Amino acid sequence: MSQHLGFIGLGNMGSPMASNLIKAGYRLSVYNRSADKARALVEAGAHQVNTPGEVAEAGGIVITMLANDEAVKSVTLGQNGILDRLGPGGIHISMSTISPALSREMVALHQQHQCTYIAAPVFGRPEAAAAHKLWVCVAGETAAKERVHPVLEALGQGLFDYGAEPEKANIVKICGNFMIAAAMETMGEALALAEKNGISRTEMIDMFGQTLFACAIYQNYGKMIAERSFTPVGFQMQLALKDINLVLDKAEESRAPMPFASLLHDRFLRGVANGQGEADWASLTNLISDDAGIQK
Amino acid sequence: MSQHLGFIGLGNMGSPMASNLIKAGYRLSVYNRSADKARALVEAGAHQVNTPGEVAEAGGIVITMLANDEAVKSVTLGQNGILDRLGPGGIHISMSTISPALSREMVALHQQHQCTYIAAPVFGRPEAAAAHKLWVCVAGETAAKERVHPVLEALGQGLFDYGAEPEKANIVKICGNFMIAAAMETMGEALALAEKNGISRTEMIDMFGQTLFACAIYQNYGKMIAERSFTPVGFQMQLALKDINLVLDKAEESRAPMPFASLLHDRFLRGVANGQGEADWASLTNLISDDAGIQK
Amino acid sequence: MSQHLGFIGLGNMGSPMASNLIKAGYRLSVYNRSADKARALVEAGAHQVNTPGEVAEAGGIVITMLANDEAVKSVTLGQNGILDRLGPGGIHISMSTISPALSREMVALHQQHQCTYIAAPVFGRPEAAAAHKLWVCVAGETAAKERVHPVLEALGQGLFDYGAEPEKANIVKICGNFMIAAAMETMGEALALAEKNGISRTEMIDMFGQTLFACAIYQNYGKMIAERSFTPVGFQMQLALKDINLVLDKAEESRAPMPFASLLHDRFLRGVANGQGEADWASLTNLISDDAGIQK
Amino acid sequence: MSQHLGFIGLGNMGSPMASNLIKAGYRLSVYNRSADKARALVEAGAHQVNTPGEVAEAGGIVITMLANDEAVKSVTLGQNGILDRLGPGGIHISMSTISPALSREMVALHQQHQCTYIAAPVFGRPEAAAAHKLWVCVAGETAAKERVHPVLEALGQGLFDYGAEPEKANIVKICGNFMIAAAMETMGEALALAEKNGISRTEMIDMFGQTLFACAIYQNYGKMIAERSFTPVGFQMQLALKDINLVLDKAEESRAPMPFASLLHDRFLRGVANGQGEADWASLTNLISDDAGIQK
Repeated sequence: MSQHLGFIGLGNMGSPMASNLIKAGYRLSVYNRSADKARALVEAGAHQVNTPGEVAEAGGIVITMLANDEAVKSVTLGQNGILDRLGPGGIHISMSTISPALSREMVALHQQHQCTYIAAPVFGRPEAAAAHKLWVCVAGETAAKERVHPVLEALGQGLFDYGAEPEKANIVKICGNFMIAAAMETMGEALALAEKNGISRTEMIDMFGQTLFACAIYQNYGKMIAERSFTPVGFQMQLALKDINLVLDKAEESRAPMPFASLLHDRFLRGVANGQGEADWASLTNLISDDAGIQK
Repeated sequence: MSQHLGFIGLGNMGSPMASNLIKAGYRLSVYNRSADKARALVEAGAHQVNTPGEVAEAGGIVITMLANDEAVKSVTLGQNGILDRLGPGGIHISMSTISPALSREMVALHQQHQCTYIAAPVFGRPEAAAAHKLWVCVAGETAAKERVHPVLEALGQGLFDYGAEPEKANIVKICGNFMIAAAMETMGEALALAEKNGISRTEMIDMFGQTLFACAIYQNYGKMIAERSFTPVGFQMQLALKDINLVLDKAEESRAPMPFASLLHDRFLRGVANGQGEADWASLTNLISDDAGIQK
Repeated sequence: MSQHLGFIGLGNMGSPMASNLIKAGYRLSVYNRSADKARALVEAGAHQVNTPGEVAEAGGIVITMLANDEAVKSVTLGQNGILDRLGPGGIHISMSTISPALSREMVALHQQHQCTYIAAPVFGRPEAAAAHKLWVCVAGETAAKERVHPVLEALGQGLFDYGAEPEKANIVKICGNFMIAAAMETMGEALALAEKNGISRTEMIDMFGQTLFACAIYQNYGKMIAERSFTPVGFQMQLALKDINLVLDKAEESRAPMPFASLLHDRFLRGVANGQGEADWASLTNLISDDAGIQK
Repeated sequence: MSQHLGFIGLGNMGSPMASNLIKAGYRLSVYNRSADKARALVEAGAHQVNTPGEVAEAGGIVITMLANDEAVKSVTLGQNGILDRLGPGGIHISMSTISPALSREMVALHQQHQCTYIAAPVFGRPEAAAAHKLWVCVAGETAAKERVHPVLEALGQGLFDYGAEPEKANIVKICGNFMIAAAMETMGEALALAEKNGISRTEMIDMFGQTLFACAIYQNYGKMIAERSFTPVGFQMQLALKDINLVLDKAEESRAPMPFASLLHDRFLRGVANGQGEADWASLTNLISDDAGIQK
């Protein structure tokens, strides 16, 4: 019989990931706060349960892919939480973008239940998740990492190991999100200048995407930003604001000033304050055009 | 007999470019303010002259690769300048990173002398110039661009045409330098945060260079920045400051606020104010480490 | 017999404030974590106790003047805390610069004990406290404010009432600290420019302090900054960083981007990261001189 | 017979200043590019002329109060300019806010004509000019300063002498405008935070204007900003942008990074890019409210 996995969090990212695990031959129990999001997975063979804890088999593996710290805490702790059911030998693979602080806290809580907590946050938008082209940053106990290796391989195209402390993988993840946001702001500023001087946004960003910046972030986000094409929403601005806050909180604790991050924070906060919290984070570049008085 | 070219400016970039043109079969007359920089080229067959104007043959092609607006004006105008000798039908290929404003001015001045001014600024550090791996952004009159096409091909690996107005190529060039500087600041901030949390600078930047940011700028500058290895100097901080000022001046004229550019300006200015004007521009990231109190 | 007051927190600010209350005729019970700070007050007639709660008389008034949220929570809650002893009808005047969030939380906790929580944060450095020249921002229940009015009058030269919700007084207080820090950065930048151009720092700031900016902050901090005279320490940079974080946290929650505050945050964080956490906050302007390469 | 003065520039500031000179008993020749602005002054006894140079009497005193460098150059140089007519012993009092660089240049040009150039820029809005409550910063040759002393006294309430080099007075002036703009941004940010938390803008700024910041700038601009009352326009945003650029240009030349100035630059540029160039500069604070999503 095929191996069992618990999976919690069936949003934009979680759904295609869970789907890939089924395709890879795993037997899935799934939970989502809004139950109707599970429909397609159930049709594909997943078993839907009513509380987070029920996804776990004793000593098994549970994956969580959720929006923020609160959501992870809520499904992990308490009476119907994962820890209540996972039991000795169990592994919790936390793939959400959460605070390093929560990761550290989770390590201790899982040890108390003789389970292991592994952080395995991912890079990639929903379409990358569907194409199992995610990049996975993993950190945690060696033995547990070995055991879950095939599971992570089924989700991504590459795996990077940051050692024994889960929070390090979370720090790398939030650094990456910061770097993507900074690349977007950078492109947005350059494109506003180009546009105001009669240079085609698309032509200029295409050139950079073929030459100096021939990489996924500049090519994919470059196209979105040049064309101001921000739907469907891949990653919400309010989540980007959350992530920049995770960066700034860690930077504060680490005594490491990050002025670009501060500036991006103010951009995202402005977007959210102006009703754009659910828009794609790349639309922060609309604010740059606004400031330049460009009629879009 | 092989085609003649005039070449002015034998610095870090100009020397390997001139050398490649000789290798490609061109007959070169060269001029540099400090005459001794021409030695190797003369040995390779170049003809060294004593004034800028002398590099030009009537109706021929002259290339300039200089540090700033003043240098370009100084070799072009005046009694011993290019325009004094180039004559009707001549073409001046200006490959320096100069202000769009000077480019516009140059178009008119060349027309008065029945010559054509073409802007063809390049992307790439000295080692890319040597390997004729430069990227060339060209703009100017169509007929002239066609005539110089083989020359530019001999210098770079790719050519991008921005139309009839030379200044547009200059704008793209300074946008590119801004984007590179922004990527450096971004990496520097992320790496300071990582380092303060016990994550290897090299390991983290390598991962990003293989995944989200698998492109020349993040790979090459990423390595330099992670290792804090800033010699030999490829591009001086004082020239980077000049370029950021070109960006900000154009942004001012275009009414396009660029907060990342403003911040980079202040970084480079601080570096120059503290005696780092001749250091490689990537060492601006040292200031980030300093601010975080990291002992290097 | 004279009225009794409890007083907790005998630091730079608390000591002169407590002393003034004794001079004004109040009978004081005092508590400080480091007991030896109470010596002078005891000599002046104060009664020193061993736990925070013991300063309270049933139904009486207790003042706290502490460094941060944690300190206020620690003396208020728990077995030996104020709330354990203050009892019905008691009033807690919280004069510390704490988060609006904690203030809101405190209101509810005090209600549960039938006590009243009043926020009364103050503006002024230790010398102003000694001269009872503090400015007091007060907010809380009307009846309680009336009862404590003479106490607050004994401490300050002016009282401003921000209504019934204590947290509003805290917001005004942190806005004020932000405004002072911004004025310091502003003066620091202007003085660096002046100095680099051979203009006397003192002469210039004196002029502004007599004309456009003829007010305490520009005169007093202006003198300190112009002369780079930052001892004795009136307010530590690490506390200033704490306060800027209170501002930014509230701004985040309120969806109000504050770019000057972000920049000040990065300045203070840099100071703290470089071992200046215990220096006076006005010495953040040293960083401006450093960036300009000024030999101090 | 009363002393003669030439006066050029009858805008918002120049008109009330010229009017005060007439009231003080001076005999005025006036020139303004738009001739109709002189009407009221002519009625008050001024003699209107048709070219800038004609305001000058040989060896006399001419005052200029104009918008920018270009205007000052245009009335000073050339065939009908001041220098053409002022002659040996004449004094040009330049009260405009211009670049220190132009001031230095002017010194040399005036020497060539055996005249003296004095910089005497002023602080104060049009209503202060009318009330002869301007603050005057003066610099230039000692003898000339003594001769014009009564003239400057007739215009302002206080005179500050910055020595022999006129450009120093200009540097102090632009530092002052930077400091005012920074105070406005500071107040704008604090007020947005207060407003979002239900605190009255007016009440909070009034308190600061009575206490920590009991000075003209915080009181007068504070009221305008709190009430969002930006008419009549006292100083246009496009001139404020010009002045911030003078600051940044001087800072660049002096190698003194000024991050607050960079940020203010981007604010004013955004205002101008969005059609607010002719609005009062204090309305830059509207952009802060916009970013916070406040419905004004």
